[in-house]
Amino acid sequence: MARIVMKFGGTSVADLDKISNVARHVKREIDAGHEVAVVVSAMAGRTNELVAWTRDAAARPDQREYDVVVSSGEQITSGLLALKLQDMGVKARSWQGWQIPMHTDAMHGAARILDIDSKVLDAHFAIGEVAVMAGFQGLAPGNRISTLGRGGSDTSAVAIAAAIGADLCDIYTDVDGVYTTDPRIVTKVRRLDRISYEEMLEMASLGAKVLQTRSVRMAMVHGVRLRVRSSFEAPDKVPPVDMDNLAALGTLVCNEDEIMEQQVVSGIAYTRDEAKVTLIRVDDKPGVSARIFGLLADANITVDVIVQNVSEDGNHTDVTFTVPESDLERTRGVLEAARPEIGYGELVDSTDIVKISVIGAGMRTHAGVAAQMFGALASKGINIQAITTSEIKISVLIDAEYTELALRTLHSSYGLDQD
Amino acid sequence: MARIVMKFGGTSVADLDKISNVARHVKREIDAGHEVAVVVSAMAGRTNELVAWTRDAAARPDQREYDVVVSSGEQITSGLLALKLQDMGVKARSWQGWQIPMHTDAMHGAARILDIDSKVLDAHFAIGEVAVMAGFQGLAPGNRISTLGRGGSDTSAVAIAAAIGADLCDIYTDVDGVYTTDPRIVTKVRRLDRISYEEMLEMASLGAKVLQTRSVRMAMVHGVRLRVRSSFEAPDKVPPVDMDNLAALGTLVCNEDEIMEQQVVSGIAYTRDEAKVTLIRVDDKPGVSARIFGLLADANITVDVIVQNVSEDGNHTDVTFTVPESDLERTRGVLEAARPEIGYGELVDSTDIVKISVIGAGMRTHAGVAAQMFGALASKGINIQAITTSEIKISVLIDAEYTELALRTLHSSYGLDQD
Repeated sequence: MARIVMKFGGTSVADLDKISNVARHVKREIDAGHEVAVVVSAMAGRTNELVAWTRDAAARPDQREYDVVVSSGEQITSGLLALKLQDMGVKARSWQGWQIPMHTDAMHGAARILDIDSKVLDAHFAIGEVAVMAGFQGLAPGNRISTLGRGGSDTSAVAIAAAIGADLCDIYTDVDGVYTTDPRIVTKVRRLDRISYEEMLEMASLGAKVLQTRSVRMAMVHGVRLRVRSSFEAPDKVPPVDMDNLAALGTLVCNEDEIMEQQVVSGIAYTRDEAKVTLIRVDDKPGVSARIFGLLADANITVDVIVQNVSEDGNHTDVTFTVPESDLERTRGVLEAARPEIGYGELVDSTDIVKISVIGAGMRTHAGVAAQMFGALASKGINIQAITTSEIKISVLIDAEYTELALRTLHSSYGLDQD
Repeated sequence: MARIVMKFGGTSVADLDKISNVARHVKREIDAGHEVAVVVSAMAGRTNELVAWTRDAAARPDQREYDVVVSSGEQITSGLLALKLQDMGVKARSWQGWQIPMHTDAMHGAARILDIDSKVLDAHFAIGEVAVMAGFQGLAPGNRISTLGRGGSDTSAVAIAAAIGADLCDIYTDVDGVYTTDPRIVTKVRRLDRISYEEMLEMASLGAKVLQTRSVRMAMVHGVRLRVRSSFEAPDKVPPVDMDNLAALGTLVCNEDEIMEQQVVSGIAYTRDEAKVTLIRVDDKPGVSARIFGLLADANITVDVIVQNVSEDGNHTDVTFTVPESDLERTRGVLEAARPEIGYGELVDSTDIVKISVIGAGMRTHAGVAAQMFGALASKGINIQAITTSEIKISVLIDAEYTELALRTLHSSYGLDQD
């Protein structure tokens, strides 16, 4: 007998048929004797509709009221799934954030979870009842509903798993695991049986959409065993959770030391969501970089890749960096306003770029991973515009039109292609 | 300065434009210096959709989970209206049943309000904030969401008005007051300036759809001044609440002694929702009526008009009564199963009937009201199938095809026609 959290996203609960499918997944685990807490998102499309309404109601919606409106989506799903489970003869009860309670801070719209009282839930597990929890929402100070920000249901699931001491947190989604790269682009992808928290964190933050960065970080900190698996498999064709054989299904996110044969490179991620900005002929005076990036930080703009070249005359420098594409407009505004103060010739930007990253915990102990990457790209005539590295990843900026070619080339080069 | 509750039903908050209109009604009262609590229903059609989902999810939905799903409709409206008010520069905050808290009993789906803590709300009034409350919902034992049953938002509004000691509870709806009868049938109807609680209670329970019986009863018990008025008038064309001139707008529901010139008959109601059942040749033995109506009471079927005639042989009797049309099937089931025990010849039923009622507190002191009714109907050749009376109303059962003729005839006969 294990205690497990099962999390289902919006596409997995999009309609009553899909909710029925989810209920059968849950029943399979209950029938196998496991204790189950389910965390659900809003039915697909619902949250967008609710968000649109709040924008119709107010030009700048108060986040506290936004949370009241938007959290209703998960409330509905939790009630419907509890009903469906009861209809199948499974004891079930829905739980909203305020009922558990899942305390958060007062950052409405993007609240952080502070603590979860598991006493009430424990009592309900003891009588064999499934707890069906509305994801994405909590209880903020002042007895108000809070929401955790988009994609917050993954975070809810991991937080609940940590609070109730779950043996496993299964994230059911529309893919059957974490792949070496995007299967829509590279046909020879392989599903990973296991991936370390650190690698998953890099994958998530570098463009892989399968898990939210925040939930992975929380799982890592609290040692929650996380697994990504498909919700669309026929529930009766899949065996119930077997704690001794977790890697048989989906992808297990776990500690590095649980992975026997660590690949040098585990996966390749990419993101088209960044824009490149270059300030040309910046006065090369002390502290100028600090000033540029200080201004952007003050405006809450996250800067990623940074490259600085000294120009030929030795008095000027070109500064290149990337920002989220959605922040490009604001970035331009901030830097143009500060142009007299900074002193630069021209601001050039481009959204026609892609950031491609190779990720692998094995890099820590293997030299030559970066050289291999640069060599492979060069062999296809792909020009690298900027590079940034960390302990377990190397990212390069290239022209967007080379995205597919670069991904396929690197996937082969690092031996990730399926046999 | 007065403290007022403003209640808006589903058609008044059906979309963002209508919610905006509601916000302007509220702002008018705030600008006049009143303290305001608003109670809102779900957007029109929303509750039906949610109810349908619960039925899709389970053949016999658990009422506790039904309440979780269905209460989300009012939650959404409360948040959207709060946002809209803030957008207009009016301080506002939404309140769910569990936040106030509005305690109810455990009769999920049709819960009764037990008590409302007004402390928190008082504190928010003190800072000039509008309290926007989700109607129809409360907090049941075990920290669960309850709902009050269909139309429960009127009841929420009155209960809140009683709890916060409001000077007035304005029910905004899609008609501009209580009329002497249904304006869709009788063109010469008059809007009533005032009506007593007792009369309104009879009107509501006898088919007038403008207010829920339950809310009127609660208003009567707690002495809440209730007014029915239109939500579709342009908010800036209407003056704010003037406590010294409440009867100038809509219809005020109040104590009988506040109505200077009480009409003998105030209004005429009708309902087509009843079915007539006749048991023919019932054995005329002692206790047989008690047995028949006892069985129906056990089955939770409400019986209204009852007529019993002794047949010619003196050993048998015919028993006629009405039940809600929605209970006819069950009534037949109960009585057919008990046929050997009761002993009767035949069960005949008809849904082709209408119950027409004349209502007026003045009947208490005026004789001849009933005779006038029977005479007026007879003069048009309308046959009365059964009669039932109370202190302030007389109801008759007639063939449904005479509905319009009977209403117009009685309306004229009692001098209710507009000049």
